[in-house]
Amino acid sequence: MDTTTGTFPTFPQGTKVASLGGGHGLFQTLTAVRLLHPDTITAIVTVADDGGSSGRIRRELGQIPPGDLRMALSALAPRDDEGRMWEATLQHRFGGSGALAGHAVGNMLIAGLYDILQSEVAALDVVAKLIRAEGRVLPVCEQPLEIEAEVGGLDADPRIVRQVRGQVAVATTVGSVRRARLVPENAVACEEAMTALQDADLITLGPGSWFTSVVPHLLVPGVTDVLERCTGMKIVVVNLDAEPGETAGFTAERYLHILQQHAASFTADVVIVDEHSVPNEADRTYLARAAANIGAKLAFHDVREEDSSGYYKSRHDPKKLAAALGAEYLAARGQ
Amino acid sequence: MDTTTGTFPTFPQGTKVASLGGGHGLFQTLTAVRLLHPDTITAIVTVADDGGSSGRIRRELGQIPPGDLRMALSALAPRDDEGRMWEATLQHRFGGSGALAGHAVGNMLIAGLYDILQSEVAALDVVAKLIRAEGRVLPVCEQPLEIEAEVGGLDADPRIVRQVRGQVAVATTVGSVRRARLVPENAVACEEAMTALQDADLITLGPGSWFTSVVPHLLVPGVTDVLERCTGMKIVVVNLDAEPGETAGFTAERYLHILQQHAASFTADVVIVDEHSVPNEADRTYLARAAANIGAKLAFHDVREEDSSGYYKSRHDPKKLAAALGAEYLAARGQ
Repeated sequence: MDTTTGTFPTFPQGTKVASLGGGHGLFQTLTAVRLLHPDTITAIVTVADDGGSSGRIRRELGQIPPGDLRMALSALAPRDDEGRMWEATLQHRFGGSGALAGHAVGNMLIAGLYDILQSEVAALDVVAKLIRAEGRVLPVCEQPLEIEAEVGGLDADPRIVRQVRGQVAVATTVGSVRRARLVPENAVACEEAMTALQDADLITLGPGSWFTSVVPHLLVPGVTDVLERCTGMKIVVVNLDAEPGETAGFTAERYLHILQQHAASFTADVVIVDEHSVPNEADRTYLARAAANIGAKLAFHDVREEDSSGYYKSRHDPKKLAAALGAEYLAARGQ
Repeated sequence: MDTTTGTFPTFPQGTKVASLGGGHGLFQTLTAVRLLHPDTITAIVTVADDGGSSGRIRRELGQIPPGDLRMALSALAPRDDEGRMWEATLQHRFGGSGALAGHAVGNMLIAGLYDILQSEVAALDVVAKLIRAEGRVLPVCEQPLEIEAEVGGLDADPRIVRQVRGQVAVATTVGSVRRARLVPENAVACEEAMTALQDADLITLGPGSWFTSVVPHLLVPGVTDVLERCTGMKIVVVNLDAEPGETAGFTAERYLHILQQHAASFTADVVIVDEHSVPNEADRTYLARAAANIGAKLAFHDVREEDSSGYYKSRHDPKKLAAALGAEYLAARGQ
């Protein structure tokens, strides 16, 4: 066991993990999963970002937005000097006030490798090798996707629903997101990613920006089929807080309803919810019912990050999340 | 001996080579030197470029222009699939019509690593390791330099001499460059580069854009002192043709005069001139005298690249240049 990781158990030898998500949520999940020392980790990443450095690359070069892929790779860099140097370099954004300002170095590298290799998977594997990543990073789909959402509450008349398009617009809307879809609707799932799901002993979904980093995975044709057929244990990690924007005011229960609403056949084995986020017993009952609706056991764990003064932050603590994932996985295996 | 390299000998075991230059000229020299399998190769590169991707990075980020450094690294990539992939990636320029168009991927990577490591030498060593470069690439100086040249012939009155500033402006001037200097004049030479010169068994200078890739090395304070004191054999490789722009109409003899004009104490052991470029016997006599003025033996070799139809191109053929360098080095050692 890694001496820096506290008292939680590691995974049995040979355990394969696949983690679906995007952005900072996936970064925290991957950091947690690494602490459990699985045999393989595959990060499967959304490709619908249209903001910042990623959005500029997407528009200029017609490529998959690399930002979420870069962040997942960074999460898998070894925790030695060289690994940290590469993590810092990939994540580094150019300064100044010129055309490069704000572009992440890792995005440039992924985009350049894609131009040469003409394969997103090959480009990501090269970067993974370069930084000696402790896992593989794959896009859920090898073409750039767009998110379009039905959003209410943008007008004086609450019955008016508008189409809001683009990850940034959806993630930051002041309205209420009712439903999201992908454009194009017939995107082709990445084969290597589907194989990783099929082979996984444990599949995690979330946390993350729900409509833009979590739900899109379930909208790529074929992904829910693979998730239905696969034999791995599936754990959904619900967000700690409602994020300002797309999920403002959402309860833990609502997050689960949204999954079901977008993928009726989706089921999971366990839903992990932070024990502080649902203090009310009645809400816990509703939440347990929502979990049961997708076939899952509801599991409360302390997974929230605290700062040194004991204040909670709105992100998952990788060590606590590792302990929760490890406990649930071992319990399900009767260990 | 490498079976792809023809019939020239390789260097004796343990031979250390340092090659001074920049741009395409240095790329050809490094490609040639590699064929002779020295123990170590150190490319020492000018840092005065202000054009293209390099110029934009220099202006936006205040860094050394990385282009010539990137090109030297590419020349040292191994000739296997992975090496060629990295060479292609480093040299690749983004397409499209946006802010990234024309930026070389390797430039972005060097610039990003510099931001993290705050050392140009460390950043270049990381890229060298990443691509498994068969040598080291160092800047002649760790701060960006500017070239300023006195140029005549820009006005109706040929006596008028104007100051032309910047690598691009000097390299493409339609006037006649009289003299170049560096701004700032008191730049500090890169310590690791000076050590490489001191340790080298063979030092090459040129070919390349004379005023912007070759002469600047001799203008960095301390470089000529190190070249005087060092024990390695010094070979100057003269350009094949006068380039349009800065050296339009220049004879081989003139190239040597320019070296002497800018660094009075500079001496060399051998000057390699392409045997086709000076057909006239009288010119050969003048040229031999110019070589003798810097202490050097004049050596004619067939070093010009031919295309498949037998037409000469205006660049050095790496195999022929390798044969010439190898022959001169071994001859000087009495082998």
